[in-house]
Amino acid sequence: MLVIGERINGMFKAVRKAIEAKDKKAIQDIAKKQVEAGARMLDVNVGPAAADDVAAMQWLVESIQEAVDVPLSIDSAKPPVIEAGLKACKKKAIINSTTGEQAKLEVLVGLAKKYNACLLGLCMDDKGIPDNIQARLEIGLRILAAAMEAGIPTDDIHLDPVVLPVKFGQAQTPMMFQTIRELKLLSDPAPKTVVGLSNVSQGCLDRPMVNRITLIMALANGLDEAIADPLDKELMDAMITAGLLLNKFIYCDSYLTAYHKAL
Amino acid sequence: MLVIGERINGMFKAVRKAIEAKDKKAIQDIAKKQVEAGARMLDVNVGPAAADDVAAMQWLVESIQEAVDVPLSIDSAKPPVIEAGLKACKKKAIINSTTGEQAKLEVLVGLAKKYNACLLGLCMDDKGIPDNIQARLEIGLRILAAAMEAGIPTDDIHLDPVVLPVKFGQAQTPMMFQTIRELKLLSDPAPKTVVGLSNVSQGCLDRPMVNRITLIMALANGLDEAIADPLDKELMDAMITAGLLLNKFIYCDSYLTAYHKAL
Repeated sequence: MLVIGERINGMFKAVRKAIEAKDKKAIQDIAKKQVEAGARMLDVNVGPAAADDVAAMQWLVESIQEAVDVPLSIDSAKPPVIEAGLKACKKKAIINSTTGEQAKLEVLVGLAKKYNACLLGLCMDDKGIPDNIQARLEIGLRILAAAMEAGIPTDDIHLDPVVLPVKFGQAQTPMMFQTIRELKLLSDPAPKTVVGLSNVSQGCLDRPMVNRITLIMALANGLDEAIADPLDKELMDAMITAGLLLNKFIYCDSYLTAYHKAL
Repeated sequence: MLVIGERINGMFKAVRKAIEAKDKKAIQDIAKKQVEAGARMLDVNVGPAAADDVAAMQWLVESIQEAVDVPLSIDSAKPPVIEAGLKACKKKAIINSTTGEQAKLEVLVGLAKKYNACLLGLCMDDKGIPDNIQARLEIGLRILAAAMEAGIPTDDIHLDPVVLPVKFGQAQTPMMFQTIRELKLLSDPAPKTVVGLSNVSQGCLDRPMVNRITLIMALANGLDEAIADPLDKELMDAMITAGLLLNKFIYCDSYLTAYHKAL
């Protein structure tokens, strides 16, 4: 189980400004801080504001790789932006993300194949986000099948059950937990499961608490990865403790520190 | 989901002294504090030291009931002590606990029937604590069947997968989570599931953290109740948030406060 750092995203003002000003140091600082805090991968998203988002993605990936040595998740809705990121990646990357929409899926499976990248698939399609587990699994299977047909190993597929804000659709959250559990049963070896965690707490008063408890419950249901904020120390400690309780590593009194040293 | 307050136990020095000195106010204070902190039931255990444990149990139950209005869990290894507690209980109590051991089971099912009490059954027997899920479920089913034969409703049976310290047997913890999940499938309506939470963190450096993450992961697997410390506010907040995420009650910004007011 691991956290994919969510902080390099043009949605955040400081990141947007750094992209505009080509302030490499600012981006590298955010990258380093996340890795030091325990992120094992970093998500990279130029955000909606970048004038030339293809160039911005390339610049971000290059800048980050000068500073840290972890794999990247190339996050964009636009295939050309994703391709620019993949081209610049030194390590095996994750494409973030496809959905079950046929046209999109074909293009992104193609990119995953071409660049030997992992593929993150959201369990939604052009009809929207299904309000039941069965339909989400069906989309997950569609993505998995398309990737397998293209010869991408199951292990390189990261399926996301889709996380919605608990405040606005509470029934979604238990459904999301159950979807994670069942996504792991779609194939053997199983696909990886991943969530965009912070979405669950949108509009909540105590967002870190809601994020943290959601993460632990998702881990208890078989979640492998979360795109989340590694700078939230309580979140990281909770995740590591969940790993201990799932017998992923051996107990020692300093198991929290040991996790960080094990990178 | 609810916490059964664990603090009235002769294992704690202050409680032992209060029992010895017949200090009713001291016991009532602990009872009140636990209920104010959100415990929906209280466990009552005279501990190993009481000279006349039958009389001590009766005195404890009577003292507690003068102060608070919640049901009690009568906790003893000795049937006569349990019966003394049950006799004194005004509300429907829980017998804590039987195991799958035939002789013990018969006596305690008899007491549950006689006093219209719920029965807490540990998934272990005279051969010890099984090191696999299947054998624990078999014992759970044995307890359930014995209770059903005696006409005790399934809903009154609280099955405990048995919690062992993560520090000394890490493989036990994921097994415990899975046992909870499967205990809920033994019958329809399902038996309740319960754990003695604090045992998981014995010998750990940060016991509250290990307790808290264990509780959330167990809740994610279908746990109904934990015998735990309601005075641990972070534990209570985590449990209530887990309830929110399982869609047990409606979100409002003050959902933590609302839980406490809903008693």
